[in-house]
Amino acid sequence: MEVKTNDTQSPLDMWVEENIENIAANKFRVLESIYSKRSRFQQVDLVRTKGHGLMLFLDGLVMCSERDEFVYHDMITHVPMFVHPDPRRVLIIGGGDGGTAREVLRHKGVEHCTMVEIDGDVVDVCKEYFHQTSCSLGDPRLDLRIEDGVRFMAETDQKFDVVMIDSTDPIGPATPLFGEAFYKDVHRVLAEDGIAVAQGESPFYQAQAQQAILHNVRTAFSHTYMYNYSNLCYPGGLWSFVMATKGLDPLADFDEARVAASGLEFQYYNPALHRGAFALPEFQRRLYEGLVTPWRD
Amino acid sequence: MEVKTNDTQSPLDMWVEENIENIAANKFRVLESIYSKRSRFQQVDLVRTKGHGLMLFLDGLVMCSERDEFVYHDMITHVPMFVHPDPRRVLIIGGGDGGTAREVLRHKGVEHCTMVEIDGDVVDVCKEYFHQTSCSLGDPRLDLRIEDGVRFMAETDQKFDVVMIDSTDPIGPATPLFGEAFYKDVHRVLAEDGIAVAQGESPFYQAQAQQAILHNVRTAFSHTYMYNYSNLCYPGGLWSFVMATKGLDPLADFDEARVAASGLEFQYYNPALHRGAFALPEFQRRLYEGLVTPWRD
Repeated sequence: MEVKTNDTQSPLDMWVEENIENIAANKFRVLESIYSKRSRFQQVDLVRTKGHGLMLFLDGLVMCSERDEFVYHDMITHVPMFVHPDPRRVLIIGGGDGGTAREVLRHKGVEHCTMVEIDGDVVDVCKEYFHQTSCSLGDPRLDLRIEDGVRFMAETDQKFDVVMIDSTDPIGPATPLFGEAFYKDVHRVLAEDGIAVAQGESPFYQAQAQQAILHNVRTAFSHTYMYNYSNLCYPGGLWSFVMATKGLDPLADFDEARVAASGLEFQYYNPALHRGAFALPEFQRRLYEGLVTPWRD
Repeated sequence: MEVKTNDTQSPLDMWVEENIENIAANKFRVLESIYSKRSRFQQVDLVRTKGHGLMLFLDGLVMCSERDEFVYHDMITHVPMFVHPDPRRVLIIGGGDGGTAREVLRHKGVEHCTMVEIDGDVVDVCKEYFHQTSCSLGDPRLDLRIEDGVRFMAETDQKFDVVMIDSTDPIGPATPLFGEAFYKDVHRVLAEDGIAVAQGESPFYQAQAQQAILHNVRTAFSHTYMYNYSNLCYPGGLWSFVMATKGLDPLADFDEARVAASGLEFQYYNPALHRGAFALPEFQRRLYEGLVTPWRD
């Protein structure tokens, strides 16, 4: 019997391409376009690829792929969850694919997780097709709200132990999530010992955006940190999260024994990597001390 | 006066593309092709880009760019140089662009550095055009030999404190540099306390090649390690070096005080990063323990 491969199902030599400031581009081979629609907020695309499984794009930017989404979702979630001594109340802003909620809800101590995603279409398409990330969106501990995260943050009187800002780049609907006003509200909704983490762009191609985020977070928080990860699909390889706390230190207050006690297994995260992720390359460390300026030609 | 930018010098919308196993590709915007020739061993291309400065390609694979070569050259050089307590005699196999020799020769304690590059055309083109990497190739402490590194390694009776295998991927002329026989010779030419490091591919797209390298190194060495780095231009973002020693441990024997005492400044390397680089992501750690198999779709 002749086995039909994915190749034979896709006679077209079809590729999707993410342009990087018109100096570079990343291409991924596409087998089929599963969903492509302009939502109220942004262009939403889901494609099936050869080599990276399903891939979600918002406004033409890669959000995640089945092959490497574990990197981002491990690192936005487990680093703060294992620094906070007892995270019970978690807030996710954005994260429409569901991957961050999935990882948060694996922590048995979590009593409730509120997820505020502005774009219901992203949630719907991931619920229908991207089960690897959306599989926990029906969890009874999850309060999934389709509304503006900036407004939610400004108006809520709830308190949270950990807040995760799981956003796209600072263009389109995510722009206000990078501003000073937003981070003042993040500080207000955080309980004592609270920790916030935010998608922090890349020190290579997005050095100026990363500097701006760090500046804005520092207007609201006195304790700020940065840690790195590397995945397959984001331009420039090396990407960062910004962490802001009300006093907790991501290394000094990291209790490795809690990782083993959790019984959780990970694909990217582990205790040594937790520590190593905070060791920034020298050029990145100096960028934030203002000792050097980003690369220009 | 109207300032002429690079853009106006290049009316063509010209790109160079590195294909990744026919599932992905990285593109870089080219302003001009400076050199393109088939040498005795491989296709050698040097292009001037918008956004990444000069870029060197061998057989269509990115070797380095002016913008990010500091990452690779810092990490192949300074990690072993600061683990060995007193590296005086260094051997580089490959490294035709000169970047590794440049970093080695910044260490004042180095008495001589032998560099064995098989392809004189690579050295010549970098000497003529790629001054950022080739600037130290005239150093009197450098013995630059244009010959087969495999044969040199088999025949030399010199001893070295640190050996760096600065090679392309295991295709074309570099293939024998990844074999078991070669690593037996590396072990033989290493002095007591000797350290070898080798370009170790990526745990993402080149997981099987990385496993093969580690397997081959382990046939000759009982102490083997892996450490990671991230640059802009290599496919998959996260790349590795394999380190093999005659007993030295890259963390326990790392004397941070020697870094400060050296007076050297770096763009990527620093002591915290040295330690962090050995913290492998969980999927990579498990790949080498044989607990998981590389991704396939």
